[in-house]
Amino acid sequence: MMRTRPLKVALLGCGVVGSEVARIMTTHADDLAARIGAPVELAGVAVRRPGKVREGVPAELVTTDATALVKRGDIDVVVEVIGGIEPARTLITTAFEHGASVVSANKALLAQDGAALHAAAEAHGKDLYYEAAVAGAIPLIRPLRESLAGDKVNRVLGIVNGTTNFILDKMDTTGAGYQEALDEATALGYAEADPTADVEGFDAAAKAAILAGIAFHTRVRLDDVHREGMTEVTAADFASAKQMGRTIKLLAICERAEDGGSVTARVHPAMIPLTHPLASVRGAYNAVFVESDAAGQLMFYGPGAGGSPTASAVLGDLVAVCRNRLSGTTGPGESAYAALPVSPMGDVVTRYHISLDVADKPGVLAQVATVFAEHGVSIDTVRQQGKDGEASLVIVTHRASDAALGGTVEALRKLDTVRGVASIMRVEGE
Amino acid sequence: MMRTRPLKVALLGCGVVGSEVARIMTTHADDLAARIGAPVELAGVAVRRPGKVREGVPAELVTTDATALVKRGDIDVVVEVIGGIEPARTLITTAFEHGASVVSANKALLAQDGAALHAAAEAHGKDLYYEAAVAGAIPLIRPLRESLAGDKVNRVLGIVNGTTNFILDKMDTTGAGYQEALDEATALGYAEADPTADVEGFDAAAKAAILAGIAFHTRVRLDDVHREGMTEVTAADFASAKQMGRTIKLLAICERAEDGGSVTARVHPAMIPLTHPLASVRGAYNAVFVESDAAGQLMFYGPGAGGSPTASAVLGDLVAVCRNRLSGTTGPGESAYAALPVSPMGDVVTRYHISLDVADKPGVLAQVATVFAEHGVSIDTVRQQGKDGEASLVIVTHRASDAALGGTVEALRKLDTVRGVASIMRVEGE
Repeated sequence: MMRTRPLKVALLGCGVVGSEVARIMTTHADDLAARIGAPVELAGVAVRRPGKVREGVPAELVTTDATALVKRGDIDVVVEVIGGIEPARTLITTAFEHGASVVSANKALLAQDGAALHAAAEAHGKDLYYEAAVAGAIPLIRPLRESLAGDKVNRVLGIVNGTTNFILDKMDTTGAGYQEALDEATALGYAEADPTADVEGFDAAAKAAILAGIAFHTRVRLDDVHREGMTEVTAADFASAKQMGRTIKLLAICERAEDGGSVTARVHPAMIPLTHPLASVRGAYNAVFVESDAAGQLMFYGPGAGGSPTASAVLGDLVAVCRNRLSGTTGPGESAYAALPVSPMGDVVTRYHISLDVADKPGVLAQVATVFAEHGVSIDTVRQQGKDGEASLVIVTHRASDAALGGTVEALRKLDTVRGVASIMRVEGE
Repeated sequence: MMRTRPLKVALLGCGVVGSEVARIMTTHADDLAARIGAPVELAGVAVRRPGKVREGVPAELVTTDATALVKRGDIDVVVEVIGGIEPARTLITTAFEHGASVVSANKALLAQDGAALHAAAEAHGKDLYYEAAVAGAIPLIRPLRESLAGDKVNRVLGIVNGTTNFILDKMDTTGAGYQEALDEATALGYAEADPTADVEGFDAAAKAAILAGIAFHTRVRLDDVHREGMTEVTAADFASAKQMGRTIKLLAICERAEDGGSVTARVHPAMIPLTHPLASVRGAYNAVFVESDAAGQLMFYGPGAGGSPTASAVLGDLVAVCRNRLSGTTGPGESAYAALPVSPMGDVVTRYHISLDVADKPGVLAQVATVFAEHGVSIDTVRQQGKDGEASLVIVTHRASDAALGGTVEALRKLDTVRGVASIMRVEGE
């Protein structure tokens, strides 16, 4: 059964992920060959700094000319683990033009240009796989694309950024503030020197765009994703969440509207019940919760980043793409046939946890409640706490649109008796 | 892109799962056609009792002659949801002989005859898919077979039977005994009138055989799986587990030996730490925890049974098989190239929680500890409790082989001072 001519793999990038891919391709060559039905051979490794010692990567395979590598014409699969938009985008399209299929771990590029890349792959009859782009090692894209292909996904609720989950988990378990928890994450290597992409939700938003696109068979671009970071989450928010049996997570949420006619995608911190399976996702782990018509509630859990886990996802794709190549076929391409409109954030319907600083005098609650009623936002629970002539009101609403809630908050700010809106947080997963 | 000739599907069995498959094939016909690239048509439904009203299944499609249906020659995919060994086995092989691929939800058959069925599929160039056979809607077989195809799986630890998880969860949360919890499970429809297959671990053992085979690329038959039921688990065991920060689950455990040279598969109740992700799997839910070299720790969670969830898995397979058929290829078949030996239970190495009733007098602990030492089983912790002249000793060991532990217990039973061995339970997931 075994074909003897090896499949040739070009590796673009040899950092944390790439070097791990190269290592496993060498150490597990026999297993990979048996699973694919033919040996795979590392045919070239494109890097920026050729001088750096790369254990296990033969020096003669290393090149700084990535373009020449993808143009060689004898490459079966290009593995792109450079990240970023360029030169990755051009290299991938060049690879298709020169007969290679592509495995990528590039969430930013897929979120921005997924449709064009899929079109290029299809035009050349090649595969584009990118399991590693979302939630590292966790099999997620394949299950959504294939296992749930006979089902209707209604909601995807995910912890897809390990750095922010580490910080929020630390705040939750130790009572630390945001800055203190971020400092610890940085010291332990969970946060980068510039943590913006993580803590402001850019990384999660890219993953939300990819997940929403696959889940709803609809093109969802990064620009379509509403994004709020988690830098404003306070120890007081956690205390308030705890009193109500909830915790706080930075979530990527992709939803089909109740009438089925549109979808939304968003990233923001949210309170979820402690009993929700996502609530017990600790440290830098990722997990994605999927709700569908027939399957019900599913969850996929695992390490969302790191060299080895990401390499595991890359190699799973590599095996699949090599198998497709041997049998002369391609796997499922882009599925965007549903082409549902992506609604703006104002249309999202959910519940809200609002903390107000108010004057401690009679009639304040009545005033506040009137404002909610005037905007059609129904109140579920109110908790009032007095302190030194001032008081705080913690209000949890029933389901209301983001637009209605926004109008409510604007009107609340104009009340003389409302000193300030201390926090507004969405309540999900109930 | 859309081919107009529909793919023809024959459905064998129209019970809880089959009727749901038929319903979704009708209500979601357009989605399925878009995802497959061609319409799919229900061409025939084989049932035992043709008179039963089946909503949404046209009467003219119903037949009692399953053999004639699979022999028709124009059937593209046979969906087998009858269960049991015969006639399912003969119908599936007949289907391959007459040109159809097969999607099955039949765990018992796959566990017993998976190798022969895979060989038949391969001989005829057809697909055999069975995601629904293990853990219902949870995508598990596809992730293990495909997503982790570039990784090395070392351990699979799963709650793969919803009935027993419901019973154990009830005992855990309410303090109920086994019989009381079973009665409630029966009343609520979670347990069958004869719960033997569930509570004695037969159902989980079939799934363990299938999972071990796929995870280790090795044939593992039902007979290779060590099986212990959970009918002996007591409220006292839960109390003892709780004192040590653990709970009790019925687990299917598939392991690669530390030297990599052999594998084991087993089903038995086990104590796991409350902090383990499997500990918070409640009610009738299933979850499977996978440990691999590169990906690390992954978990897949969801409903493990029921008509709709199982139908979701069947339809995901149906889409994949139809797509393969359209592109003239087949998906990954059996992968048994590693052909590792399956070791007996005595070779399994784990930790143990042993509860002894002993005489409450000096020197007993020394005697007991000597027996452990003589058998090379090292003790981690001992807890001693006196009650009315008798005492109980709760001992947790370090890692030891099942054979060594068995020898230890046999010797303990011979001690005059040991009145009885109240319980022995393995400790996993630490």
